[in-house]
This record gives sequence, structure tokens and C-alpha cells, in this order.
Amino acid sequence: MLRAGAVRKTLYVLFCAPFLLTPQIQNQPDDGQWTMPAKNYASTRFSTLDQVNSGNVKQLKLAWTFSTGLTRGQEAGPLVVNGTMYIITPWPNLLYALDLTKPGAPRKWTYTPGTSASSQGVACCDVVNRGGVFYKGKIYYNTLDMHTVAVDAVTGKEVWKTTVGDINQGESITMAPLIVKDKVLVGNSGGEFGVRGWLAALDADTGKIAWRGYSAGPDKDVLIGASFKPFYEQDRQKDLGVKSWQGDQWKIGGGAAWSWISYDPDLDLIYYGTSNPGPWNADQRPGDNKWTCTLFARRPETGEVIWAYQMNPHDDHDYDGVNENVLLDLNIQGRLRKVLAHPDRNGRMYILDRATGEVISAESFAYQNTSDGVDPKTGRIHYVASKATGFKTVRDICPAAPGGKDWQPSAFSPRTGYLYLPHNNLCMDLQGVQANYIAGTPYVGANVKMYAGPGGYRGVFSAWDPVQAKNVWSINEMFPVWSGSLVTAGDVAFYGTMDGWFKAVDARTGKPLWQFRTGSGIISQPISYRGPDGKQYIAVLDGVGGWSGAIVAGGLNPQDGTGALGFVNAMKDLPDYTTKGGNLYVFALP
Amino acid sequence: MLRAGAVRKTLYVLFCAPFLLTPQIQNQPDDGQWTMPAKNYASTRFSTLDQVNSGNVKQLKLAWTFSTGLTRGQEAGPLVVNGTMYIITPWPNLLYALDLTKPGAPRKWTYTPGTSASSQGVACCDVVNRGGVFYKGKIYYNTLDMHTVAVDAVTGKEVWKTTVGDINQGESITMAPLIVKDKVLVGNSGGEFGVRGWLAALDADTGKIAWRGYSAGPDKDVLIGASFKPFYEQDRQKDLGVKSWQGDQWKIGGGAAWSWISYDPDLDLIYYGTSNPGPWNADQRPGDNKWTCTLFARRPETGEVIWAYQMNPHDDHDYDGVNENVLLDLNIQGRLRKVLAHPDRNGRMYILDRATGEVISAESFAYQNTSDGVDPKTGRIHYVASKATGFKTVRDICPAAPGGKDWQPSAFSPRTGYLYLPHNNLCMDLQGVQANYIAGTPYVGANVKMYAGPGGYRGVFSAWDPVQAKNVWSINEMFPVWSGSLVTAGDVAFYGTMDGWFKAVDARTGKPLWQFRTGSGIISQPISYRGPDGKQYIAVLDGVGGWSGAIVAGGLNPQDGTGALGFVNAMKDLPDYTTKGGNLYVFALP
Repeated sequence: MLRAGAVRKTLYVLFCAPFLLTPQIQNQPDDGQWTMPAKNYASTRFSTLDQVNSGNVKQLKLAWTFSTGLTRGQEAGPLVVNGTMYIITPWPNLLYALDLTKPGAPRKWTYTPGTSASSQGVACCDVVNRGGVFYKGKIYYNTLDMHTVAVDAVTGKEVWKTTVGDINQGESITMAPLIVKDKVLVGNSGGEFGVRGWLAALDADTGKIAWRGYSAGPDKDVLIGASFKPFYEQDRQKDLGVKSWQGDQWKIGGGAAWSWISYDPDLDLIYYGTSNPGPWNADQRPGDNKWTCTLFARRPETGEVIWAYQMNPHDDHDYDGVNENVLLDLNIQGRLRKVLAHPDRNGRMYILDRATGEVISAESFAYQNTSDGVDPKTGRIHYVASKATGFKTVRDICPAAPGGKDWQPSAFSPRTGYLYLPHNNLCMDLQGVQANYIAGTPYVGANVKMYAGPGGYRGVFSAWDPVQAKNVWSINEMFPVWSGSLVTAGDVAFYGTMDGWFKAVDARTGKPLWQFRTGSGIISQPISYRGPDGKQYIAVLDGVGGWSGAIVAGGLNPQDGTGALGFVNAMKDLPDYTTKGGNLYVFALP
Repeated sequence: MLRAGAVRKTLYVLFCAPFLLTPQIQNQPDDGQWTMPAKNYASTRFSTLDQVNSGNVKQLKLAWTFSTGLTRGQEAGPLVVNGTMYIITPWPNLLYALDLTKPGAPRKWTYTPGTSASSQGVACCDVVNRGGVFYKGKIYYNTLDMHTVAVDAVTGKEVWKTTVGDINQGESITMAPLIVKDKVLVGNSGGEFGVRGWLAALDADTGKIAWRGYSAGPDKDVLIGASFKPFYEQDRQKDLGVKSWQGDQWKIGGGAAWSWISYDPDLDLIYYGTSNPGPWNADQRPGDNKWTCTLFARRPETGEVIWAYQMNPHDDHDYDGVNENVLLDLNIQGRLRKVLAHPDRNGRMYILDRATGEVISAESFAYQNTSDGVDPKTGRIHYVASKATGFKTVRDICPAAPGGKDWQPSAFSPRTGYLYLPHNNLCMDLQGVQANYIAGTPYVGANVKMYAGPGGYRGVFSAWDPVQAKNVWSINEMFPVWSGSLVTAGDVAFYGTMDGWFKAVDARTGKPLWQFRTGSGIISQPISYRGPDGKQYIAVLDGVGGWSGAIVAGGLNPQDGTGALGFVNAMKDLPDYTTKGGNLYVFALP
């Protein structure tokens, strides 16, 4: 017994101790709640609850359900705070509060923001919403029609509502805000509508806009000043947000901040990425198009940029840089590094020093043939010339526009040291055509046809070792794995599939442990919480849709492969496998 | 042991033997399938499966789900035949085939009948459909826009589609057909649109209309001829379908056959009821208005009427006579009687000799104050004069227009001898106003305000002893119990509530045994079947709606109590308790 204990302790020190240093996780002991989409500022989506574990997960039983009453793509996951569950829906962006202290979780109230119907016209890819955040007694979230709202978490009354942009300029919002130091951080969508991307900070109490940092334009608009210290030489010139464009193209050049934000309290930096430049037709916008496809590190209180790193200069393939940044403190080659792990659309897993923006590694986590490396000196990616796009047709581009991974967020377990990546295996043919800018209308300039990548499957759920920079195990799925992932201290990783299976796998081995057939396909974010009864629950919403599922959620014609910017071509069979939906499923052990 | 066995045998002979005589049940040994909505021609909704019983039902676990992708009221239940489950949706009336032999029951195919969108405009009370029937390799059902379709059960290909009426005349179809001797029996809806009601028989192979029996008009149209032998003197005159009306009012007088049909193979008679006369304003249509609110017994092959019995001559309260007829052979006062049990909208449980149409008993199963008895000599109901309506306002009419019970079908267990009644407890104020007939538009002439009946609850699930003609036990529910019921050989009765609970109770005592929280309220028909794996499954769809739930399914304004013909006034709080939905739930023991 003593011996086994000693061995266990040694293993623990060797393998687990490094991860326990992750300050964001240490600083947020798990109270069984789920107050922000990614669970914590480090965006690990790791639940310390362990009642449900790899040994007993096969006994999971559906405890109760709830219908959102809507059937567009459901990308948000629930929040759980103080015995109440909050659910935010796709357009028209209802907020439901469910009472977890009562049998069947009856509704306490419904908040209806009155989201304008015409905002649906500027949503590139279904009318999704990625969730809200609880902060000091309020639920904060964004509406498709360019508003941020604060709602009293107890009463459901609107506290404030701020107009943050203009749908007539092609702007919309689908992202979940993050709140740091009383600043509600919000970014726009619209990379396919020629918007000028930005991230704004609103005062959490009043809703007043405190700062707005654009993704392109003069340094003063980007909030680049004296504190700006990018790691690489090439990024240190003045006003690159103007100079790396032709003429005024930066004004309609995309770089939207439509996805995830992380925060490191010790370094006092927020991290997020910017979208593709517009239009997709790369010949129409010479230059590096900074700061699109870029990771920004900013101060939360002022918006000042501390460093920036552009993954895809002069993006040729709609490789938005918006994917999540998971903040980890890793022991890499004998040295403790504060890193961020960023699985980019381009198929590479960027491990960056999050204090400086230095690229530590950038290995491929998905099949890709558009780049052959990142120069360690310049930090610049090296593109494969034959895959450069413009006024021509280029075939067999891998990954396709939705990338090796799109918005669907990964999780990280400090127990295994692995990242759990829900992702895609898609390639495309792209024909560049002339795009003409008309405010509020699509500005793309590309005819795209997507299809399954090598192997014929379209999705993957995999475990990635960020220290070794290599894949550990992977599970192929018929359709893109468009849901978020969740991993727990019970060593179970959860994800959902577009054909309607909610799956649990062994976090160490990837062995399938349990699955449940949901009504519709899943593209939302699973969570885990401790109920008022002390039990651990796992919750997920179905409701297929989003860019990948627009063929079902929007009822698109399977005969027109160019629908949903060419995604329909890859998803023609999805309507045979799933139907629209929008139900919550809450599971527990019997 | 011997002694207990002897006692058990005596009890069995005393209490169970009478019910075993029910020929419809004897003739249809349970193969674990569910081929027609009411399970069998006798309409008992009794499953002989007993794996799930009153002792273990609390262990029921959700096995899998399926989303219909639609969120209007779901009144149909599934069919299960040859390892395939079939689901028919509200408008646009999709037919899904799910493969029960594979994990998660993937879809085999979807049949889309192309139901016209404008048919939604003539649906009085949500765009529901009550299901289909399997017969000799095909699935038959009706579409809201007046078509009957036959679909190959294996391939999903349409075999035939017949136009049976005209939505421009206010006709629609919501009922499930019954097939008897290769005749597909179909009736129209539209009692609130001034239609002329009928039941038609279509050839099952070709879809050609074989006969059509109207509910009003000359005897030749009603198919009343030499074989017509009504039990009561008052019904024996010629052409009562004309003479009991003023002028030509019978041509737009309602009497739609929009609900259930039963069949007795031994007597070779089909049984069904006709709807209210139109308009609701009774002063506008003097006379008995035959044959509205009437039970018909017809020959399935020719449509000939053998007998008819009018429950509500000159109906004052929208008391349609369409409710189900459960065919039972009962030992009543020492005599074996072939009866039908018909729980009428007027709140009385009619036990009729189904060979002759004689009223054996007609006791109240729900609170009612509109009639004080049925004359045993004349068969005529005696109305309470103060509740007669017309060009005036009458208050406190009980039951309200949806009746003591509406379409929601009851079940019967030969093991307990009880009928299980899902029903209403509603009263109303009714103000008669002038109705003007314009083809294809509402023809009602009444302003109605409904509210909860005595006790304040709006729904009841009860067990009724048809031999003793009395209530055995009852469970009060907040909202009308608008779902069908199911009872099994495991002595468990199932029903669903509009606030989203699927419930199992002890069939003998009414003791609650188990409940499950569904996403949306339930108004559909639960079923039980044996899966290809040999397990017993219980299946039910959620999706609140129908007349009672139109406030949610149709998004009606709670401020306008006159909405849904006055039902909204009684259901103002429903939106606080449930949301739209449309998911299938399939349960089994672990």
C-alpha cells in the first residue's frame, strides 16, 4: 500500500504538478457553478467535479429536459449560478432562467430583448449566439442586432442595453462577452460583409463604452501606443494597420472579433483573435492586411495593445484567427512557460509565450497543405505557393475555409495535460471573382466548394499534447465536430456530433464510454455543474445549425452546393441524418 | 400457496373474465407493434406488454430522442411496425421513418407531402395532425390541405394522393384515418368555417373515393336507407338531415367528422361522431340540426347508416360529438352487453348498446351544469334552460366549449375494467353575435371567455368504471390534460401534461409512480411497443399546442382573452410554464 502510494505520488509530481501551477485554475476553486462559457478566464472548460467518472459514466441518465421553443442553430451552452440555469437562444436571443431548486427546473422568467428581425439578414452563417456571462448579479450577453444587454439575474429585468454597432453596415454580434475588471468585452461579426472589426469595452454598471480597439487602421484607432512590444521585428513599424493595405481598403477590411476572449490576471492581459480580411478574393486586397488573422494581447482597462501576432498575413483562405486561446503554464524543455494554446483555422496549433507573443511551436493538428512551416526568426508563416488564391480557381485547398478548427472551443485537463479538440477535416476548391462593396451586403468574391478531407470523414475529436506538440489520440466523425468540448476531473471528455450523439470518452485514451441520442444534432457547448441536491450534472443543448449546419437550420437547397459560402456542398447528406431542434438535456447518475 | 392460488383464480373469474370477452382485443394478439393510433379497432389503447409494471416503472430511463424539427402542436403518436417507427408531424405534415434496429434509431427516409401553406388559414385551432395508420405495407394519413396519402412503408415513396375536399370552402383535415376492409375512412374538419361535414371511404389500393356519407342533408346524401334502424322513435323520420334545419342551413351547418373512428368486426359496424353545428350562435339555426353532435354506426363497405344517436340536439355550447368510442363487452346488471363507451364533450359518459344505439347509461364524468339527464324513453337529453345560448350573454356554462373532454383519447384496461380519461375542467361565458357566412372564413357568431371550473384546476386524469357508471379515482392537473392516455398490462397508466410532465400512475389506484420532465408540454398520444431487442419501450412526443395550447404554439397575445375562440382567456399563464417544442422521447428500463 505504501509503495503504491509512493509511486502514485511520484507520478503525480512528475505529470500533474506542472499543470497545478496554472494560476487561473488555482485562483478559481470550483464552486460547482458555470458562470462564463469557457468556465474560467483561462478558457479550459475543465470541471473539477468528479462524481461522474470514466468508470460510471455509462450509467448517465437523462434527468430532465427543456425546450427553447426555437429551432435555429444553438451554439450557446447554459450558465449555472446560485441554483439557477440561464440559457441564451439564437435569434431572437431570448434569455431563459430555470429554477434548479425545483423538480423539473420550472422557468423563473424569460427576458426578451426584442432583437430586430432584419439582423438575420447580416448573419453570414445562421443566426447563432455563443452565450452570456454572469458577473456581480447580472447576466450579460449580446444580441444579433448589435446590442449588449445587462439583465438582473434574479428578476430578469433589463438593467441596461447599449447599441454597439450598426446592422446596416453589415455588422452583427454572435460572440459571448467576457467581463474583466468591470469591463464587458464585446466584438463584432461581419468579415463577409466588409465591416471594420473591433473589440469594445463597456462599463459593467452603466453600459457606457469605455474604449474601442479596431483591428485595422492607424495605430491610435487600434490602440497601439508606447506599450506595444510585438515579439517579431516585422510587426514593429508604425501604422501597419494602414500601411499593410492598399488605399482605404482597411476601412472595409474585416478583422472582426467575433469569437473567444481569455484573460490572465497575473499578466493583466486579455487575448483574442481577429477574423479574415475582406473580401475573400485575395487579389483584391494586396498586402499583409494587418491586423486581420491576428492574436492581440491588450490591457483590459484601457485596450492598449501589448503585443500582436499575425498567424496569416494576407490571408488566402478565410483562415480567421478568432479561435480560442487556452492559457496554460507548461513545463516545456525544462522551462516553465506561460503560454497560450491557439488551434488556428490554418490547421496549426500555436503555442505562444503569452507574455511576449513568441511562437514556441506551431505544429499541424489537422491535415493541411497550405503552409509548410513558421519561420522561428521572423515568426512568419511560410505558405505553399500553389495554394495561393485570387482571380483564379485553386483546387484541393486543405483545410477549407472553416479551417482545421472553427469557433468550436477546445478543453484542457490539468490531470491529463491534454487539449481536447473538436474539429474539422474539410478541403475546398476556391474560385476568386470580383467582389463589389455595398454597405450591409455580402462582400466575399469567392465561389467555394467544400468537401471531406483525406479519409472521407469530415470531423475529428482529438487529444493534443501541448508540451510534446503532438496528437495523442483521435476519433473520426462523419460530420465536422462543431460542438464545444468539456473535460472533467472524472477524466471524461464530452462532445456532441452533428448527427445527434452526445458522447463521453476516456480523457486519457479516447475510448468511447457512453453516448446518448439527442433529438437534433449538437453544435453547442456542454457544461457540468453541481446541483442544489449535491449531484453532478452534465448539460448540453441540441439544435443543429451554424455555418456547418445552415443547410438544415436554414432549410438550404442541397442542390446548390455554393450555399452557406460553399459549406452546403460538404453537407448535402446532413438533412438525412438530423433535423432541426433546440432542447436542453441534463444528465446525472441515477 | 394453493389457497392463495384459488383465491386469485376466483378473483380472476369474477373481475377479469368479463373483459376477456371483448372480441376486438382477443382477435388482435399483441405483437409488440402499434399500427394504428388507438392500438386496435376497439380503440382501447391497451398494451399487453408488461415488462414495465407498477413495481419497476420508477426506473424508466430515456433511451433516445428525435427532433421533429417543428414546433407546432404535436397531437399524433408514433406508429411502430416491422422494426420501424413512423412519426407524422403538424403542418407541413412530414412523415419520418426511423430504423429501430440501429442504435439511436437513425432516419430511413422522410416523406414530404407538400401541404399547402394556405391550409394553415382554415385550421381553427393550431395546425395539428392526429396520426396515421399502417395497413398492408403502406402508411396512410391525411394532410391539412385536404389530401389523403398512401406511402410505401419500406421505401417512403408516395403510392397515391387523393384530393378529398377544398380548403377554399373552409375544409381541412386533422384526423387520423382508420382502415377497415380495404377502405380508408377519412372525415373533414371545419365546424367553425361553415363546412358541410362528411366521412368518406377511399379504396386502400387506388385512393379512389368509394363512398361519402354526409352528416346533414337528404337521407340519400347521409346514406340513410332501408337498413337504418335508430333505437329511438324521434330519429325515425325521413330526411331529418334537412327537416331539422331552417331552409338550406344544413348546407353550411358543420357536423364535421374530425376525430376518431372505431370498428366492430363481428357486427361489421364503424362508429364515429360528428361535430357541432355551425354557427355557434344557436339562435341562428333553429331546429335539432341533425345529424350534428351525433354518433353514427355505418357499414364500412357501403357507408350505409345502421343507427344514429344525437347526443346534443340543437347544440348550444359547441359540444361536438366527435370523441372516441371505446368498444367493450361488459357484464352490466347480469347481462353481457356489447357497448361503446363515449365520453362526450357535454360531460356525460355515454354507454350505448353498439348494436342498436340504445343508451344504457349517461352519467357525468366531468363537472357540468348544462343538462340534468337523458330521458330513457326518448333518448333525448334534457337541457338546463338557463344555459341555453343565442343572441345574449350566458355565464358560467360548464363545461366550456372544449367540453368535459375534447379529442384527447382515453384508454381501457381489461385487467382493471377502468377507462382512463384525460380531460378538462373548464367553464365559459358565451355571448352570441351575428355570424355571416363567407366561404372559407370563420363562421362562429360567439364571443367566448373560458376559465377554470370549480376547484380552480383546469385538467383531470381519472379512472372511470363503465359498469358501475362512476368515477374510481381522479388526479387534478393545473392545465387541461390534452394528451391521450395509454394503459398497459403492467397496470400502469400514462399521460402527459401541458406543463411538460410525462406521468405514470398505478392503473388500479391512481397513485403517482413516476414522472419525467419533457422539453415542451405534451398533447400527443403515448404508445408502448416491443423493440427489436425484445425490450418494452414507452414513447411520447412533446410539442404543446392544439386548441388549448394555441397561445404558445401560435404565439397568441395573452392580453386578448378571446383568442383561440376564448381558450386563451383560460390559458394566459401557459407561456410561463412551457415553451414550444416537438421532440420524441423513448423510454425503457435500464
